[in-house]
Amino acid sequence: MAVNKGKPTILVTNDDGITSPGIRTLVEEMRKLGTVVVVAPDSPQSGMGHAITIDQPLRLEHVQMFDDVESYQCTGTPVDCVKLAVDKIIKGKPHLCVSGINHGSNSSINVIYSGTMSAAMEAAIEGIDAIGFSFLNYSFEADMTLPRRVVRELTPEVLKKGLPKYTLLNVNIPDFREAEYKGIRVCRQAVAKWEEEFTERIDPRGKKYYWLTGNFVNKDAGDDTDEWALANGFASVVPVQFDLTAHHAIPHLHKIIGS
Amino acid sequence: MAVNKGKPTILVTNDDGITSPGIRTLVEEMRKLGTVVVVAPDSPQSGMGHAITIDQPLRLEHVQMFDDVESYQCTGTPVDCVKLAVDKIIKGKPHLCVSGINHGSNSSINVIYSGTMSAAMEAAIEGIDAIGFSFLNYSFEADMTLPRRVVRELTPEVLKKGLPKYTLLNVNIPDFREAEYKGIRVCRQAVAKWEEEFTERIDPRGKKYYWLTGNFVNKDAGDDTDEWALANGFASVVPVQFDLTAHHAIPHLHKIIGS
Repeated sequence: MAVNKGKPTILVTNDDGITSPGIRTLVEEMRKLGTVVVVAPDSPQSGMGHAITIDQPLRLEHVQMFDDVESYQCTGTPVDCVKLAVDKIIKGKPHLCVSGINHGSNSSINVIYSGTMSAAMEAAIEGIDAIGFSFLNYSFEADMTLPRRVVRELTPEVLKKGLPKYTLLNVNIPDFREAEYKGIRVCRQAVAKWEEEFTERIDPRGKKYYWLTGNFVNKDAGDDTDEWALANGFASVVPVQFDLTAHHAIPHLHKIIGS
Repeated sequence: MAVNKGKPTILVTNDDGITSPGIRTLVEEMRKLGTVVVVAPDSPQSGMGHAITIDQPLRLEHVQMFDDVESYQCTGTPVDCVKLAVDKIIKGKPHLCVSGINHGSNSSINVIYSGTMSAAMEAAIEGIDAIGFSFLNYSFEADMTLPRRVVRELTPEVLKKGLPKYTLLNVNIPDFREAEYKGIRVCRQAVAKWEEEFTERIDPRGKKYYWLTGNFVNKDAGDDTDEWALANGFASVVPVQFDLTAHHAIPHLHKIIGS
């Protein structure tokens, strides 16, 4: 396809796979705003982080999923989907890339593990305005009224005004009823982590195996964090960057390393 | 194993897999500094980013790889290895986690895609001082004299002085002869990216498939970047953080979003 200069071209992807209700909601909303292209994984890719596929070939298949919207499923990771969409489908930069709506939170430290957010980050690295949307409800049966509303409130503004250079948005939507929703809040990423506990089991041949599990622990008392916003009925919007340099630590490091 | 309070406990991992020459070099150097535990992937995991395994069980197998060093191979990603090491093997925090030595660069934007760096980042999230080492030579036959020297120059200092909170180190070593090596340089992550080109091929059944390939493009003219340091014979040390918030963008976002 060719990028149409009049109407914005919007790339839609996710990590739950092309058949998830979350991406369907996002496609429905984006169709109202521009020409939509979907390139999404053919199977769930949660927790894939910024993985790319370098030792396997990728497949891309045209599918009829969303009425008249041009759609492809891909055998790769969410990041692969964005790379392939730009290089092989759109053959240029869309005006916006939206990823999600993820079924489950990508707030605070989860941004690091999230395929949804990594897809959006890959678009941002390519110089494309990008937003990842996540809903704090894991169920595929969840009511998408509030997520849909947040997508509608935020996306036209971003399309119109653009985002700061090298910045994408991590948007999380609380699992609240619409009447209790308090609006959008710009936040920082909370200092929180997973305290892992692996469940140990024995297979039928007597060998141990492990399932990853764990508890999410928020250690951050600030009221300017995404965790605070979400607990208090706001949708959190964290500007995210891909320059991982801890610039503030450079002077200290000079002292430690002496160079 | 129990963490020994006298001698430092050092966790060694990587993304090239437990049989790679890079991890062997690192184990040899770390044995001189403390009690070493190796938990590393049983197969190559390059490009895995911060992927975790949530829909498959993990296996952990005790292996005899490095003389008397306690070693395990894991079926999961580099991040899984660190999580399992902390929860099931060390059952506490080691004093240091080192990842690598990666066969290939993880400078600038590559930090995002790198399994080596994600393993180190996972350790840092757990509150463990962590360093990822990468060598700008992909060959398993490469001469490891210079990487070994950089590991020796840096690691004892980090063990002695510790790292700033929430910070890990991304260390890249140039593919220079030792005589041309100019020393260690603290840097920021260069603004650089991959310009992807997928190679399109046709399989024996007539269906298209794609291989990821691409050119690395450094758009950053600064002499304070890791790319500059590496091109000029220095080993680059970038302090890396896992707070991805673009703090500087928050005021601007308030204007765009109006909240």
